[in-house]
Amino acid sequence: MNLLGIDLGGTKTSVCIGDENGTIRAARRIPTLASEGPESGLRRTAGLARALLDETGLDPARVDAVGISAPGPVSVREGLMLRPPNMPGWVDVPLVRWAQDSFGRPVFMNNDANACALAEYRYGSCRGTPNLVYLTMSTGLGAGIVLDGNLVQGATDLAGEVGHHVLDIRGPPCPCGQRGCLEIYCGGKNVADRLRARIVKDNARSAILGEAGGDPAAIDFRAFLAAVKKDDALALEFWEEYLERLAQGVGTVIMFFNPQVILMGTIAIHAGEFLLAPLRERVRRYAWAPSVAACRILPSALEGRIGDLSALAVAADGLPPRV
Amino acid sequence: MNLLGIDLGGTKTSVCIGDENGTIRAARRIPTLASEGPESGLRRTAGLARALLDETGLDPARVDAVGISAPGPVSVREGLMLRPPNMPGWVDVPLVRWAQDSFGRPVFMNNDANACALAEYRYGSCRGTPNLVYLTMSTGLGAGIVLDGNLVQGATDLAGEVGHHVLDIRGPPCPCGQRGCLEIYCGGKNVADRLRARIVKDNARSAILGEAGGDPAAIDFRAFLAAVKKDDALALEFWEEYLERLAQGVGTVIMFFNPQVILMGTIAIHAGEFLLAPLRERVRRYAWAPSVAACRILPSALEGRIGDLSALAVAADGLPPRV
Repeated sequence: MNLLGIDLGGTKTSVCIGDENGTIRAARRIPTLASEGPESGLRRTAGLARALLDETGLDPARVDAVGISAPGPVSVREGLMLRPPNMPGWVDVPLVRWAQDSFGRPVFMNNDANACALAEYRYGSCRGTPNLVYLTMSTGLGAGIVLDGNLVQGATDLAGEVGHHVLDIRGPPCPCGQRGCLEIYCGGKNVADRLRARIVKDNARSAILGEAGGDPAAIDFRAFLAAVKKDDALALEFWEEYLERLAQGVGTVIMFFNPQVILMGTIAIHAGEFLLAPLRERVRRYAWAPSVAACRILPSALEGRIGDLSALAVAADGLPPRV
Repeated sequence: MNLLGIDLGGTKTSVCIGDENGTIRAARRIPTLASEGPESGLRRTAGLARALLDETGLDPARVDAVGISAPGPVSVREGLMLRPPNMPGWVDVPLVRWAQDSFGRPVFMNNDANACALAEYRYGSCRGTPNLVYLTMSTGLGAGIVLDGNLVQGATDLAGEVGHHVLDIRGPPCPCGQRGCLEIYCGGKNVADRLRARIVKDNARSAILGEAGGDPAAIDFRAFLAAVKKDDALALEFWEEYLERLAQGVGTVIMFFNPQVILMGTIAIHAGEFLLAPLRERVRRYAWAPSVAACRILPSALEGRIGDLSALAVAADGLPPRV
C-alpha cells in the first residue's frame, strides 16, 4: 500500500510516504509556525506533501490512505483537532476535511499519544503485544492504550488522559485546572517550570542553573537531569519526587490496564536506565506484585522515526486489512 | 439457549438456569460455607445444580454452556480461582475443570466484577453502551470494564483493579499491603473497620454505635450511613472523606477510560441520590469537564438479580453468537 503520513506537531510538522509495514520511503519536515494560525500551517503542509509526492513520482491517486497524528485533544469521530494547549488559535480545526479536500483520498486521524501506541503495536520492539501502553513522556504526559489488540478511544476519544489523573488532592496546581495531576509532577515542561520558579523565588544556587548556561529561562529537563547526576541538592529533591510520583502514576496504569508492556517516550529514552531502573523498583509500591511481574517497562525503540511511523500507523489502522 | 449460571460468593452461592437474553427460569441459593473448604463447597454446588436441572426437567445434555462468576482474582486462561481474600483455603481452585467434570458441557468463568459488567452490558439499564464501567461498591471495590463492546481482561486477567490504585501515598495502610488505596477509603468493610477502630480507641460517643445496636462488632456501612443522615459528627467526618476519595477514584476512572456510563453496585444502590448527587458534583474536581459531561453515573438497576445475571452473561459471552 501507499500511505501518506502527516505528523502535525506544535513545533514541527513532518510529512512522509511509506507503507503499512512501517517502511518510510521519503519524509520531509517543516516548522509548524503554529502562531501564524491553522490556515497558513495547513497550506504549507499540503504544499510539502504535494512536493514529496512529486519528488517520489507517486501519483496522488495511488495513495491508499492519509494518516494524521495531531496534538490532542482531537475528535476522531468529527475529524477535528479541538484545542491543543500549546497551539493557541488552532480551535476545532477540521483536519480530516482539509486532508480529504487536499488529497482526495481516505483520511484517518488520531491524537499523537494514540498514534504512537499504534506505531508501537505495529512497528515497535514489542509489536503485536495485545495489551500495550505508550507514555509520551515529553513536554506533557499522555498515553495511548492498546487492549486486546485494539486502540482504546473511549466514548468521546478522550480515553488515556493519564497525565491528568490526580495523585494528590492537595498537590500543586496544574495548568489544566486540577491539583496534583501526574503531569504537574512528571511532565517535562511542568518540572522545568517548577524548578525555574523555585530557583528564582529562593535565588537558589543550583547546578541546574549552570547546566542551563546561567539563564533561568533556559532551564529544561535535560539541565535538571544533568544536575541530578551531579548530586545537586535541589535537583535531587525534585528527582525524588519525580520518581515517586511517576511510580505512583505508572502503578495506577498497571492496576487499571494490566498491560504486558509500557513503552516510554522522549524523557525515558534520553534518561535510559538511570530513570527506568529506579522506576521499576518503586512501581512495586503502587501496584500488586502479579500485575507488576506481568508488565515490562521499556523505553520506546522508535525514537526519531516515531512521528512518521505514528502517522503511517493511523493510516494503516484505518484501512481494512487486505486478505 | 439453555445456560447454567453459577454465582459463587464468599457468603452464598447461587445456581440458576436461564438464557442468553437474561431470562432466569429457575434459581436456587445455598450458603457457601467457605470455611469448610472448596471440596465441600463445590460438591454441594454441583448437587444443587443437578437438583435444579431435575426440577426444571432440563436434560443436562441440552445445556449449551455453564457460566461461573467467582470472587477475584481469577485466571480466566487457566480456569482457576486464585486466592480470594475472604475465602481462606480456596487457593488455585480449578473451577472450570470442576464444572466440566460435573456437567460435561462448555464452561466459561470470570471474576465477579467483570461478570457484573457483562451483565450490565447485556441486560442492564444501559445495555449495549459500548464503553461502560461497573463498580462493585460492596465489601470491596472492584471494577469490570467494557470498552468498544468488549470486556477488558488485561495481560493476566487482572485489569480493572481500581480499588487498589493509590489515592494518597501517605494514606492509611490497606490490607492489600499498599497505602492509601481507593478501597481503604471507600470499601464497605474497610470503612466499617476504620470507624470501629476509631470508636473503640477514642471510646467515642457516636450515633454510629447506636445504629449498630451498641455493639462495635456490628458496625457496618448501613449504620454509618444512618448516622450520617443524623448529622453525627464522626460519621460526617468520615462521609466527607468517603465522598472526596470516591470522587477522586471515579475521576481517575473517567480520565483513563472515558466511559459513557459508570454503574455502581450495592452501596450506591442502597444510598441512592444521597450518595450519587454529591459524588457527581465532586467528580468535577478530578476529571476534565468534557469527559465528565460524556459520562453518566448511575446506580445499577439489576440489584437482586445481578448475581444470577452475571453468571448467565459470562456463559453467553463465552459462546459464539448464533447467526
